[in-house]
Amino acid sequence: MRDYYETTVRVRYAETDRMGVVYYANYLVWFEIGRVETFRQMGFNYKEMEEVDDSWAVVAEARCRYLKPVFYDDVVLIRTRVVESRSRTLRFGYEIRREATGELLATGETLHVICDGKNRSKSLPEKYRKFLPLTARAADDPAE
Amino acid sequence: MRDYYETTVRVRYAETDRMGVVYYANYLVWFEIGRVETFRQMGFNYKEMEEVDDSWAVVAEARCRYLKPVFYDDVVLIRTRVVESRSRTLRFGYEIRREATGELLATGETLHVICDGKNRSKSLPEKYRKFLPLTARAADDPAE
Amino acid sequence: MRDYYETTVRVRYAETDRMGVVYYANYLVWFEIGRVETFRQMGFNYKEMEEVDDSWAVVAEARCRYLKPVFYDDVVLIRTRVVESRSRTLRFGYEIRREATGELLATGETLHVICDGKNRSKSLPEKYRKFLPLTARAADDPAE
Amino acid sequence: MRDYYETTVRVRYAETDRMGVVYYANYLVWFEIGRVETFRQMGFNYKEMEEVDDSWAVVAEARCRYLKPVFYDDVVLIRTRVVESRSRTLRFGYEIRREATGELLATGETLHVICDGKNRSKSLPEKYRKFLPLTARAADDPAE
Repeated sequence: MRDYYETTVRVRYAETDRMGVVYYANYLVWFEIGRVETFRQMGFNYKEMEEVDDSWAVVAEARCRYLKPVFYDDVVLIRTRVVESRSRTLRFGYEIRREATGELLATGETLHVICDGKNRSKSLPEKYRKFLPLTARAADDPAE
Repeated sequence: MRDYYETTVRVRYAETDRMGVVYYANYLVWFEIGRVETFRQMGFNYKEMEEVDDSWAVVAEARCRYLKPVFYDDVVLIRTRVVESRSRTLRFGYEIRREATGELLATGETLHVICDGKNRSKSLPEKYRKFLPLTARAADDPAE
Repeated sequence: MRDYYETTVRVRYAETDRMGVVYYANYLVWFEIGRVETFRQMGFNYKEMEEVDDSWAVVAEARCRYLKPVFYDDVVLIRTRVVESRSRTLRFGYEIRREATGELLATGETLHVICDGKNRSKSLPEKYRKFLPLTARAADDPAE
Repeated sequence: MRDYYETTVRVRYAETDRMGVVYYANYLVWFEIGRVETFRQMGFNYKEMEEVDDSWAVVAEARCRYLKPVFYDDVVLIRTRVVESRSRTLRFGYEIRREATGELLATGETLHVICDGKNRSKSLPEKYRKFLPLTARAADDPAE
């Protein structure tokens, strides 16, 4: 598994607030873009995972640390990596950097539970396992 | 049919942009709130219209005229009226006013086509017709 | 200091996503509403704190745990409390509950640094201290 | 002046709603992207126009016709052109097309008034006039 998968977005006017910087909730939208582009770079399409395989990566936790303000029209680099891959859960880590300088602007993490369309937890379908191999963990970990 | 149905919202930080005012796309969110609260005040629930009667008010046109800026934490009055009600379409008119002063801040209009879940146009179910009686129109109007 | 301050919002169509539930970033918008309404119920206006006292509660951290899906048109109760109040920082805790049933839907936390308009950290102005008394903490806490 | 300026965006999960399509207000965000990328392709930066020349393209009118639904993960082509350029106003026209097929999904228009930071109308600074030459209009047009 590669370390980080990268994609960029340019800050939209709509994403700023009256403080003149990007509104804090919008970083979670960038994380979502980071995940989806990570899947695409790995070789599969998240939309298909939802529509063809009835497997939805439902968000269970999200967190973000805001280090430096992000401004309108900035190009930001979204760096995403798989922190943990288990049978029914996926955890991603994120870095948001200013593309021009590499400066670290924010970090974050999200935890997802694979669910079917009725919101019942299920295992990640086998066909996706080659892209998301199980990560090692302590034998007594109760999470699964 | 009453003239205007009214509801209020307080401007959220998230709705402002770096110009220090409400970002222009967010007025369309307020129009949506105006429509839904109009239906509720008329005596029915739009969510049920979608879920029970498979009738979705799909937006076909929207327009807004922005007269004065709207600021963070302002309470705005959303005034909504049914401009036109036909067998398969509904047209709404909107006024956005500063609640404290009554000052007119924006006006708008949306046109909706009643569709089923597969995006096929259909007639508004009969049970809703008492709330949304057909409006008069010229005999040669080709719109239906 | 009271425990929780409460306010409600009705879920907007705009806040849902194609999964049929509220999109995860929008909970952070509700947290923001919770903070601002907490200040209002305490007796002061956050907008004034920004505009008159040049004191901005800049977000440094945010986290959310998503427990149950939230649906369109639901009325959600936002419960906010001050978890920690220091000279230059404020930490809030949140509960999101379905108003009709009291069911817990999500919990969260945000950390804010008081800054001036140039994004330099400063102490909370004295006039707000009566509303936000310093909370006790361990003597060796390095955070300030 | 070229006809249309083009840019693309990929539909974000955040932009969809529970109908499974892009929420109608988000098209106005795409129009904003279309304008800004048009300026960049013409040879100047809108952010600088705001910050250096205190000239803000304040929205006075917006309209959109929604022709076909737009789905999650679609790549849409935003085509923007200057419909009218006067001393104090700019009018843009937009087409939203599915990039893969060229299919027309929506059309729109926005009218902007050039204002200073205090929201007072002003002429477009001379340095931008070469990029946005005045368009011909009827001699008796009262708009200016």
